[in-house]
Amino acid sequence: MSAFSIGSFGPLSLNPIAPDYGCITSTPKAGWENNDLLGHFSRLIDAPMALDTDVNCAAVGERLFGSGRGLDTFCYVTVGTGIGVGLLVDGAPHGGANHPEAGHIRLPRAAGDEVFPGICPFHGDCLEGLASGPAMRARWNMPGEHLPPDHPGWEIEADYLAGLCATLTYIVRPDRIIIGGGVMESPGMYGRVRRALTTKLAGYDASMRTLQMDDYIAAPTAGSSAGLTGALALAYRTATRQWPMHWSVRLPSFSNPTSLSGAALA
Amino acid sequence: MSAFSIGSFGPLSLNPIAPDYGCITSTPKAGWENNDLLGHFSRLIDAPMALDTDVNCAAVGERLFGSGRGLDTFCYVTVGTGIGVGLLVDGAPHGGANHPEAGHIRLPRAAGDEVFPGICPFHGDCLEGLASGPAMRARWNMPGEHLPPDHPGWEIEADYLAGLCATLTYIVRPDRIIIGGGVMESPGMYGRVRRALTTKLAGYDASMRTLQMDDYIAAPTAGSSAGLTGALALAYRTATRQWPMHWSVRLPSFSNPTSLSGAALA
Repeated sequence: MSAFSIGSFGPLSLNPIAPDYGCITSTPKAGWENNDLLGHFSRLIDAPMALDTDVNCAAVGERLFGSGRGLDTFCYVTVGTGIGVGLLVDGAPHGGANHPEAGHIRLPRAAGDEVFPGICPFHGDCLEGLASGPAMRARWNMPGEHLPPDHPGWEIEADYLAGLCATLTYIVRPDRIIIGGGVMESPGMYGRVRRALTTKLAGYDASMRTLQMDDYIAAPTAGSSAGLTGALALAYRTATRQWPMHWSVRLPSFSNPTSLSGAALA
Repeated sequence: MSAFSIGSFGPLSLNPIAPDYGCITSTPKAGWENNDLLGHFSRLIDAPMALDTDVNCAAVGERLFGSGRGLDTFCYVTVGTGIGVGLLVDGAPHGGANHPEAGHIRLPRAAGDEVFPGICPFHGDCLEGLASGPAMRARWNMPGEHLPPDHPGWEIEADYLAGLCATLTYIVRPDRIIIGGGVMESPGMYGRVRRALTTKLAGYDASMRTLQMDDYIAAPTAGSSAGLTGALALAYRTATRQWPMHWSVRLPSFSNPTSLSGAALA
């Protein structure tokens, strides 16, 4: 049995009955718009093909070897050049009519951030336009990693990420929200996001009052190969119709991970 | 085989391993906070018990007899004394760690609505605090049904509901969003919400560009007994482990539906 799968940045057309199934659709990334990603590999490789987003694949990787172990429903958020959200619902990557693009939700402006117009080419000040790595750089005229740890920019950033977590909490009710990406490496960011989220939830709903924030907002722990691991698991499922819950050996982490992962299983 | 089920307003504790499972938790409704709803009926009725939210039950009713027929993943929104959102994912009511409370998400303020503080006792200006029926009444000092059809309040209302639909679209990617409730009965509201949603999505993602808005944002059609039908279907599933997809006879609609429905199946 063999199968081939791809975990890619999006937006991707993931609806098998859509005419553009397997294509990258509207992306600002030069040269990738309308790229027939799956078609390209389908012509080269004679095997069943699977495709999902990089973030859904990473979520699967976290489910197998990281902070998603033992959880049925959780969110995987990565904050870097964009803001991506992967979703596992009842143990499977959530697709719906297409995959989530939760980075593009809109939130109220954080205190102290009333002027910056945002950089999303589609929406201006959607979440990704206000809180991705490039948005931080545009707002402060320097890369986020150059901002001192006590710079007010970090509280603004935490406010937006906590706003995303609150929205995911209200809509998805996940068991955990795993947040990673370069922006989260700033010292104290997890604490800032947890505190801002507690304030935003404002004690609503007993089940939210008892959320253990240190446990609920967690860092990814499956390493930089989580996406490739998840893509490989997707190939496994495509070949066998089961998730490889018995896998016990992690892939090594890569020092230079890419957001486009191909995985083949023979 | 027999089973008993309840569809109730929330927030409910729906996690079977939680100590307060089956209770209504933090509600501003007088006399209902911490009410052990399921426990009360469990002591009276000797049968397997099931419980879900009124909106998830109504979504199941719409799946069987209304605007959700043939759809696997859709949202059911009702805008009345509160804003409730039910979610069917892959054909089953979505629970997660608990049920969605998407009425409490926060959105940017609509143009022309910068001053009204909102009425949610927990969050002030969350969606429910700004756009429920009582919020409209508090903002304009009259019930929504007394506002003339060309009153600017309707555009503000449509902006918030379209903001909810955009957020649900980005996170859930449903096949359809069914919106009902008293506020939607105002002439032209569906058109207003569809237009505002098209503007908000701003052409992002080819699969969203091709959304047929008249089809995507739809009215409920299963009648006022949708919630009771769904609760009955939940009892059926509890007894048989299957949804009653073969049911062909609708319950009559009720002129005075309640948001608390009990259903027994013997």
